[in-house]
Amino acid sequence: MEATHGRLLARVERDGGVADYVAIEEPLEIRVRGVALAVTMRTPGHDEELALGFLHGEGLIGAAAPAGPPHDLAGNVVDVDTELLREPPQRRFYTTSSCGVCGKGALEEVAVHAPPTAPGPVIERELLAALPDRLAAAQPGFASTGGLHATGLFDAAGELLVAREDVGRHNAMDKVIGRALIDRRLPLRGNVLCVSGRLSFELVQKAAVAGAPVLVGVGAPTSLAVALAREQAMTLCGFARGGQVNVYSGPERVGGEGRGG
Amino acid sequence: MEATHGRLLARVERDGGVADYVAIEEPLEIRVRGVALAVTMRTPGHDEELALGFLHGEGLIGAAAPAGPPHDLAGNVVDVDTELLREPPQRRFYTTSSCGVCGKGALEEVAVHAPPTAPGPVIERELLAALPDRLAAAQPGFASTGGLHATGLFDAAGELLVAREDVGRHNAMDKVIGRALIDRRLPLRGNVLCVSGRLSFELVQKAAVAGAPVLVGVGAPTSLAVALAREQAMTLCGFARGGQVNVYSGPERVGGEGRGG
Repeated sequence: MEATHGRLLARVERDGGVADYVAIEEPLEIRVRGVALAVTMRTPGHDEELALGFLHGEGLIGAAAPAGPPHDLAGNVVDVDTELLREPPQRRFYTTSSCGVCGKGALEEVAVHAPPTAPGPVIERELLAALPDRLAAAQPGFASTGGLHATGLFDAAGELLVAREDVGRHNAMDKVIGRALIDRRLPLRGNVLCVSGRLSFELVQKAAVAGAPVLVGVGAPTSLAVALAREQAMTLCGFARGGQVNVYSGPERVGGEGRGG
Repeated sequence: MEATHGRLLARVERDGGVADYVAIEEPLEIRVRGVALAVTMRTPGHDEELALGFLHGEGLIGAAAPAGPPHDLAGNVVDVDTELLREPPQRRFYTTSSCGVCGKGALEEVAVHAPPTAPGPVIERELLAALPDRLAAAQPGFASTGGLHATGLFDAAGELLVAREDVGRHNAMDKVIGRALIDRRLPLRGNVLCVSGRLSFELVQKAAVAGAPVLVGVGAPTSLAVALAREQAMTLCGFARGGQVNVYSGPERVGGEGRGG
């Protein structure tokens, strides 16, 4: 396999000798001062952002970037030189979750780490529904393979500020938030996050911890995603397709005609 | 929210007072003899299967089911009474992965736990391409919400043996393999696994550890999924849509006309 498109895609040969492009997936170990905290299967690139966004989403670092840049070791290890705000969870391993929470205390745990959501902005429904297309236009990998998730950070006027792609939906979100952290944009009071897929609890949690008032997804939300968005007074929109959007939480930030449907 | 369809879906009200159905997502803590090993965000139901399939995929238990059934505690905790084959990994937490592997040793680690893949069966290309539709027909949750992943276990004639749905793609696979373990079908020498989404390293790993010779997905494979399938001599098919299928590994098990394209 041969990497292309930066390092998003690899060329593989399939049956019949046809050349195909697939999303690159490799493990990344995230360390803090030499101690391994996590391993994620991710698409290489923007690994420092991924590490910082992950640590921020876990409530392990604050909104200020570490003094020195994370150190990229040997390609699949990144080491962040920073103090942690709290001890990392002691569980042995998580099956799919980076949320660092479990059991009945999940919602309460998140609330502790998430800042109060800003009241504004109010965004037109038509604009929210248009964000996935704007994100897709900045997503070269997906167009080639169908195998990458994307997250975009938009301003309140719908201008795309940052877009990242990854095989893991959480990673794409972590990379965007890590970039925002480096750029001193946190908390994301006036911004909208948009994801190319479905809306899980974890994505809402990461957006909430970053202070984002509005999260839009192309796909369906889960029950716990809706519950958390409501608890955090975050605006959560799903099924953003064909000029439409469903609003599951925080309709007060959605302006314009055509509610419901 | 009110659960329906067993416990797959919950009813939520969205903007305009419209009633909508979303996939239920709740945390499950997996314990072995009282010790918490993992937490996964999953759709409730078949939790014992999920726990067993997860432990098997991690190489922590063998193909024989524990003597006693797992104990379902308080709804979101399941406790399995079994000896483990090895010590669980000592890492603090994983960001998205249940694979229990990391870094450069990933492929080697998996090979240790996966049995040799059986040479047969040979399955017609048209039949492989038809499996997703058969799986979808057994997937009531997805039709309602678009928010659930499914995994199906088929015999070599394309008959569906087990189907499970979950918000997490790995969970759906774990539930099917856990069911197969309880039914003493492991290793899955003559069977085909089919998933409703994309093909990650983790899904190939779980299928490999269960001994499945053929894995079919509706979506795209990742680079590491292809690499692992080739290493394990597993047949890996992606983009199974519209009567077509792309074969990325193990074409010797794919029969019939129309290779390539």
